[in-house]
Amino acid sequence: MNNSLAEKLVSRSAGICLYGFAPPKQATPSERLEAIVAQQLVRLRSLPVDGLIVYDIQDEAERISAPRPFPFLPTLPPEVYAYEHLGSLEVPKIVYRCVNRDTPDGFVRWLDCENGGPRISVLVGAPSRHSQVGLRLTDAYALARQHSSNLLLGGIAIAERHGRTLDEHHRILAKTEKGCRFFVTQAVYDVTSTKSLLSDYALALDETGGVPLPIILTFSPCGSEKTLSFMKWLGIAFPRWLENDLQFARDPLAKSLELCERIFAEVRDYAGDKGIPLGVNVESVSIRKEEIEASMELLRLLRRRVER
Amino acid sequence: MNNSLAEKLVSRSAGICLYGFAPPKQATPSERLEAIVAQQLVRLRSLPVDGLIVYDIQDEAERISAPRPFPFLPTLPPEVYAYEHLGSLEVPKIVYRCVNRDTPDGFVRWLDCENGGPRISVLVGAPSRHSQVGLRLTDAYALARQHSSNLLLGGIAIAERHGRTLDEHHRILAKTEKGCRFFVTQAVYDVTSTKSLLSDYALALDETGGVPLPIILTFSPCGSEKTLSFMKWLGIAFPRWLENDLQFARDPLAKSLELCERIFAEVRDYAGDKGIPLGVNVESVSIRKEEIEASMELLRLLRRRVER
Repeated sequence: MNNSLAEKLVSRSAGICLYGFAPPKQATPSERLEAIVAQQLVRLRSLPVDGLIVYDIQDEAERISAPRPFPFLPTLPPEVYAYEHLGSLEVPKIVYRCVNRDTPDGFVRWLDCENGGPRISVLVGAPSRHSQVGLRLTDAYALARQHSSNLLLGGIAIAERHGRTLDEHHRILAKTEKGCRFFVTQAVYDVTSTKSLLSDYALALDETGGVPLPIILTFSPCGSEKTLSFMKWLGIAFPRWLENDLQFARDPLAKSLELCERIFAEVRDYAGDKGIPLGVNVESVSIRKEEIEASMELLRLLRRRVER
Repeated sequence: MNNSLAEKLVSRSAGICLYGFAPPKQATPSERLEAIVAQQLVRLRSLPVDGLIVYDIQDEAERISAPRPFPFLPTLPPEVYAYEHLGSLEVPKIVYRCVNRDTPDGFVRWLDCENGGPRISVLVGAPSRHSQVGLRLTDAYALARQHSSNLLLGGIAIAERHGRTLDEHHRILAKTEKGCRFFVTQAVYDVTSTKSLLSDYALALDETGGVPLPIILTFSPCGSEKTLSFMKWLGIAFPRWLENDLQFARDPLAKSLELCERIFAEVRDYAGDKGIPLGVNVESVSIRKEEIEASMELLRLLRRRVER
């Protein structure tokens, strides 16, 4: 049961369904933290998912000159939150790890504590070429192979980067070489760059005779100007018309769910034609109650579509 | 009957259906020209259209540094081809005029010969800011108002430009002020910039209380690498995935028709929500027989969708 996500990933199943979130802030007082955990356990227990993603949040201030719309506050380590605080949840967890803050020794220690069972992680590199790098992603993959052969690795795939440089499929293939078995995108509002990435990925596999790995598309409700500007700050692309439609919608949150559903249906049909197994990951970048609840509704909506 | 297109344009009808083409080359020997005209009369007579567009082809070499994939050869004047060679066709004609090659006097003479009846024209400005300009578009509109009040004027609208500068809707509104009653796009393969233009146009009209004018979307089959590269040279944007799908299709021409139909359906639904009357114009940028025939098939396919 606990292994089913790993099995689905390794067997390159389509239709994997995940829910993603960041751990609470490190500075959360312990009573408040207990309340958050209790509430999250209730919410997450009822979610029809194959697994949870626990993000590792970094500042990313080097990536972009615009000021961060929300302040950056360090969170609890995702593995601590996933395995300890949410330890009673049986559902498999995918733990993110930003390796550019690691030293080789620190990363190996993290790998050791990851050795407890058949665990799944996504390693994330530096947010920009200008970032200070402790451990390079390439070196982290090598250390993971060497020290933690049980760890099932995934990578991130950024369609927006592909829209600019048309080489994200090469990054996917290089990460595959280094051991990644699946890929997770950031929130998809730009259907064009997402289809373009899948297209170039499929063509590259045709050339090399490779098999397509699961691509997990992330979807995230956007119910306010503030959330929109934060998502844009995070590097999520919004086509002009879609941004207009969100901004002028009577109910932006409902509109964003409708748009996410349509985008997913379009990309699903496209990926299906190319033989790429698609999955979904739903998250809320906002901590507003109504946006979190909308993300859970979105998960149910997309789950229905993913199963078709 | 001959007026029905003008009436539809002025009453801002949705679903106007046009077919566009360039006149034969000026250097065509007269016997060959007769044969071309005879063949075109047969083809065009059977077309279920509200009107024909006869383009005015300019070199456009200043617009782009890349070499033109097909050589530029001057054509017969579009008004001569439309009203003389194709004079026996009762269907209304929209004659294009590139005014940057005009002098004020020359343009007024052209307007005079346009005074014969309730005629329709689209005035086109310089292909680039770096072009040598004889007559500015603004001055041409003023001369048209002064000398030819019967002339029904349309303008061009370039969604790709909107994708870059987000101001094409301002150009549409400015041209509307100067007398344009409808707009024709270049070939649409980029659904995103097209929807974005319509979105910003609708929002601007909401603000100013203006009424939406007919936007005629041009569609053009693309059945070969050469046609693709020519269309790209002309400034038509192809999303990466779509270009891949065309290039690797077993039957690129059929694929391009399928894509055009889907794009039209998506934009039609979007424009419908915004209350913008949409029409179609089908053309072939290629003179290959099979691409011309595909354009006529596309016209029939889109006509069916436009009437829904």
